[in-house]
Amino acid sequence: MTTRLIIDTDTAGDDCFSLLLGLLHPNASLEAVTICNGNVAFDLQVENALHTIEVAGRGGEVPVYLGSARPLMGRWRAASYHGSNGMSEMVFEKAKQRPEAKHAIDAIIDLVMANPGEISIIAQAPLTNIALAYLKEPRIAKALKQLWIMGGTDNAVGNVTPAAEFNFYVDPEAAKIVLEAGFNVTLSTWTLTLSSGFFHADTIERIAGLGTKLSQFYMDVSQTPMKTAKERYGAIMNTHPDSLTTAMAIDEDLILESAEVVVEMEVGGETTRGFSAVYPAGMVEGWEKKTPNARIVRKADTAGFADMLISVLK
Amino acid sequence: MTTRLIIDTDTAGDDCFSLLLGLLHPNASLEAVTICNGNVAFDLQVENALHTIEVAGRGGEVPVYLGSARPLMGRWRAASYHGSNGMSEMVFEKAKQRPEAKHAIDAIIDLVMANPGEISIIAQAPLTNIALAYLKEPRIAKALKQLWIMGGTDNAVGNVTPAAEFNFYVDPEAAKIVLEAGFNVTLSTWTLTLSSGFFHADTIERIAGLGTKLSQFYMDVSQTPMKTAKERYGAIMNTHPDSLTTAMAIDEDLILESAEVVVEMEVGGETTRGFSAVYPAGMVEGWEKKTPNARIVRKADTAGFADMLISVLK
Amino acid sequence: MTTRLIIDTDTAGDDCFSLLLGLLHPNASLEAVTICNGNVAFDLQVENALHTIEVAGRGGEVPVYLGSARPLMGRWRAASYHGSNGMSEMVFEKAKQRPEAKHAIDAIIDLVMANPGEISIIAQAPLTNIALAYLKEPRIAKALKQLWIMGGTDNAVGNVTPAAEFNFYVDPEAAKIVLEAGFNVTLSTWTLTLSSGFFHADTIERIAGLGTKLSQFYMDVSQTPMKTAKERYGAIMNTHPDSLTTAMAIDEDLILESAEVVVEMEVGGETTRGFSAVYPAGMVEGWEKKTPNARIVRKADTAGFADMLISVLK
Amino acid sequence: MTTRLIIDTDTAGDDCFSLLLGLLHPNASLEAVTICNGNVAFDLQVENALHTIEVAGRGGEVPVYLGSARPLMGRWRAASYHGSNGMSEMVFEKAKQRPEAKHAIDAIIDLVMANPGEISIIAQAPLTNIALAYLKEPRIAKALKQLWIMGGTDNAVGNVTPAAEFNFYVDPEAAKIVLEAGFNVTLSTWTLTLSSGFFHADTIERIAGLGTKLSQFYMDVSQTPMKTAKERYGAIMNTHPDSLTTAMAIDEDLILESAEVVVEMEVGGETTRGFSAVYPAGMVEGWEKKTPNARIVRKADTAGFADMLISVLK
Ligand SMILES: [Ca+2]
Ligand SMILES: [Ca+2]
Ligand SMILES: [Ca+2]
Ligand SMILES: [Ca+2]
Repeated sequence: MTTRLIIDTDTAGDDCFSLLLGLLHPNASLEAVTICNGNVAFDLQVENALHTIEVAGRGGEVPVYLGSARPLMGRWRAASYHGSNGMSEMVFEKAKQRPEAKHAIDAIIDLVMANPGEISIIAQAPLTNIALAYLKEPRIAKALKQLWIMGGTDNAVGNVTPAAEFNFYVDPEAAKIVLEAGFNVTLSTWTLTLSSGFFHADTIERIAGLGTKLSQFYMDVSQTPMKTAKERYGAIMNTHPDSLTTAMAIDEDLILESAEVVVEMEVGGETTRGFSAVYPAGMVEGWEKKTPNARIVRKADTAGFADMLISVLK
Repeated sequence: MTTRLIIDTDTAGDDCFSLLLGLLHPNASLEAVTICNGNVAFDLQVENALHTIEVAGRGGEVPVYLGSARPLMGRWRAASYHGSNGMSEMVFEKAKQRPEAKHAIDAIIDLVMANPGEISIIAQAPLTNIALAYLKEPRIAKALKQLWIMGGTDNAVGNVTPAAEFNFYVDPEAAKIVLEAGFNVTLSTWTLTLSSGFFHADTIERIAGLGTKLSQFYMDVSQTPMKTAKERYGAIMNTHPDSLTTAMAIDEDLILESAEVVVEMEVGGETTRGFSAVYPAGMVEGWEKKTPNARIVRKADTAGFADMLISVLK
Repeated sequence: MTTRLIIDTDTAGDDCFSLLLGLLHPNASLEAVTICNGNVAFDLQVENALHTIEVAGRGGEVPVYLGSARPLMGRWRAASYHGSNGMSEMVFEKAKQRPEAKHAIDAIIDLVMANPGEISIIAQAPLTNIALAYLKEPRIAKALKQLWIMGGTDNAVGNVTPAAEFNFYVDPEAAKIVLEAGFNVTLSTWTLTLSSGFFHADTIERIAGLGTKLSQFYMDVSQTPMKTAKERYGAIMNTHPDSLTTAMAIDEDLILESAEVVVEMEVGGETTRGFSAVYPAGMVEGWEKKTPNARIVRKADTAGFADMLISVLK
Repeated sequence: MTTRLIIDTDTAGDDCFSLLLGLLHPNASLEAVTICNGNVAFDLQVENALHTIEVAGRGGEVPVYLGSARPLMGRWRAASYHGSNGMSEMVFEKAKQRPEAKHAIDAIIDLVMANPGEISIIAQAPLTNIALAYLKEPRIAKALKQLWIMGGTDNAVGNVTPAAEFNFYVDPEAAKIVLEAGFNVTLSTWTLTLSSGFFHADTIERIAGLGTKLSQFYMDVSQTPMKTAKERYGAIMNTHPDSLTTAMAIDEDLILESAEVVVEMEVGGETTRGFSAVYPAGMVEGWEKKTPNARIVRKADTAGFADMLISVLK
């Protein structure tokens, strides 16, 4: 079965591998790429996405739409993890394909409303674009098939602050709007990334050993985060929050454990802005009065995911 | 070596067993009990503490001082977990011993300042009393030997909200004041309770089998929480946040794993009031600019703790 | 000189009279009406606007576009002041003119970008539509001639809470986005309404005495607020926040006193959500480090305004 | 009739003149001075108070007690308005009288509880001491005769931020605790100071012309604020928030207009921390569901106040 996808991305690092899955996996049909503020400067993200499409041999086939260059409330901050250009300082020629004139939020609205129940979105960036599309056309919440969100934590440590993961930290208001909108949400958290979206040396060697143009692309793009990880933890490793999310969207059998939960966003707070409280059934008072608004993935098939990613890098 | 202790307590459930350790363990010298707002109505907590001292055969020997009947900002809420009286509805005669006239915060200040470097406090309730004592006499932060705090989580799920553990939830302002005061803090979190302060059926049967007055007291006081746990999880179990903390204070060898960390309290926020962010070295940006303000316990010797608690129930 | 206008309105009560000024004053050219969430149910506001256009004899000549039916963060609340339908329960036939298909934020963007430096907006509702238009097309901030905002207070009492005026209270996030966007803003506050946009019995009698269809419309629409005012203050009076704003946009000579100030929005807080802090030069510390982002009107020519409004009701 | 007073003060500038009223007015009996964090460094404030008592010729007669050197949450900031030492850089010899050993909060509790219904407090500093005394002994709320608070604004511009007056800004949590405690509060706001506690050149010349030691003291202490005012506004003027408050406590006939109101403190917020919302009857929704917790003074007899202050400077 083909999964029809829009990928909303702040293209840098693992965002690219997620795009490759959408571009090259036989069961995926990537129909639009929308760019959102996030990891690095907006224009760099646009070029990173266009370059990834070109590297995948699909230049000119999948349209790229520009979304919001800033989070709703305007407090943008870049991540340093993937190098200054989001591509581990890799230099590449400007892709031939250029972005479309239509705004990303109109691209999302038009595609979703024209194909009710057919399209799923991979939201692998701050949720600004999704929130703005919903605010302009609230009916997309029900017309979208599935909204796969990479973001937040599962009541566990974040990667920007102890309380917050990057995507939710950058635009918590957008995350709050989206989580309250009634989408059919699956949440792929940073906590899941740490447990199930984490490649160790063996897998990375498998990829390096492929010797293809795309395996080289993988190694190039991953250089800076892998160097940082080596320095911090003394081991070869790489994390795949975004591509794991897309992999699960393409093949739900990769989801080994999940639960229906209530997720509530914190937009205030001094140390907790961007925190996503997950109400697990039975553990805290009052949980039973709340209606679940997301399926949270608790465990994924790391080996199966690695196999899928490797299959498109071949 | 004898550990000289003050126990600050919102006496209900496991608070009692912590008091028993202080009252009866040969290496502990419990020199004062101070009552703080928390689990149940203030007056009930006072009687629960006095009764526990009497049950331990030490009536009249350890003074009980009354502290603040409300958290700093006045938004008190009771916990339902230990029954309406905090003692699983157990009925008992009023103890002969009566509370002292001196206020708890003066009792703390006087004892600590008269014995610099000698006294440790077990803070097993909201931190109102400790905060008020510190605000009145800031020098106690350095004159106290150790401050053992049962409270907060280790970037994990809470027991009142997903974000907050009860003691920190009830008085986050007090927790913030205390954590910023420069005390020599050891933090015993709800996360630690779930991993290391948790008795299963085997241990509870060992206790029930003792057939002593104190083992009966343990079973009586634990009835309501054990019934709730049975209903929710289908198993016999009991949690020991407070008594585990005191056990570690009496014998630090029970601490199997710990780390120096930065703990920051959230007092604002809509869903996160009472959250304690723990900055683990190396995991989030900017952690290296902060100075550790607590030793957090990550793993304790559950079997050794059970043996210690059983030794005083014999 | 003709002022080319878009009026963004939550049409109820005085919103109507503001529309009349735009529709009928010889120096105004009202080119679009955009509807925003606010006073009453969204659909009622749409009909109120269409009816007002019809009553003005301009049915079919000025397009009406639908904007956001909710504030950004979704916490909408109606005002009760103008009756349940926003028109003092006046019953009227559905207007012939129907709303356009184009979304209000696209209408704003298209009109402003096609006529750089030519169009001014009267924002007489919560600022949701203006914020969304800006987030989709940030260049409107500089392409718009003037943004006239009715909202906030001048460090004085509000009309929803002591801290907040209705329009800013309903969507403070939108107000914050707009005030930080770099528009050429003139702020017409509730404080100004109380001092300069307030009609007493004499003026109201002048209007009633006109005996025209539009003077009757004024009396009908004003019935509920005037009744409430009578009960509360024992006097005949009516307030004109929106129409005063449009009057000043049409004729800036009605502005008797104004100042360049810094306005900062509060989106958090327990009692202050929606507060607009106005930094007056020289009065508080640090004011001199901030760059003014609005011209605030401190005094307007009430008599001149009354004359202008009466001129279009004739 | 004699008014028995405790003055809680962050002694600097006008605090001194307030003390003079308490020390020298025939109808006042100043029974204790308690020092609170606020205007300048704590130790300077203590010496400023002791010096003022000495200058008044009452050295050794009125005990001075030390309170909390920091606000509850610890974010202290000094005011620059009265010069670096709070006394316009005036140099003076250390007073003979030294502070008492008893803590200010115990001094307050003991004096109030020993004389129920007899003692009034002038709170002319951040409310830290009053809050701590109340938290230790809640019965003082009813045992105190009157609590005169200089602090906050009357829904008008502040003097630290547009939203906040200094005393409430420095310790909003304390202000919140005190305002919710059930004291018999009269609120003397910064708004009142601007309208009624403001001396112009004529009055200041009258004082200067007295030629007494105390008139010289007035001129010396006022030098820095008067210089600043001259530079900013080009006029000779001086503000008297604290001494006006004490004057009204000594002679309530100086109160020309007042109202029973609800005052709510903001402790959160980004721009509004320290804001005191005043709910005026009839103006905002929901006001009628709240119970008044303060009498707010809206107009005072400036001339009568000037006469009273001059009478003690003679
Ligand atoms: Ca991403
Ligand atoms: Ca406890
Ligand atoms: Ca309006
Ligand atoms: Ca003062």
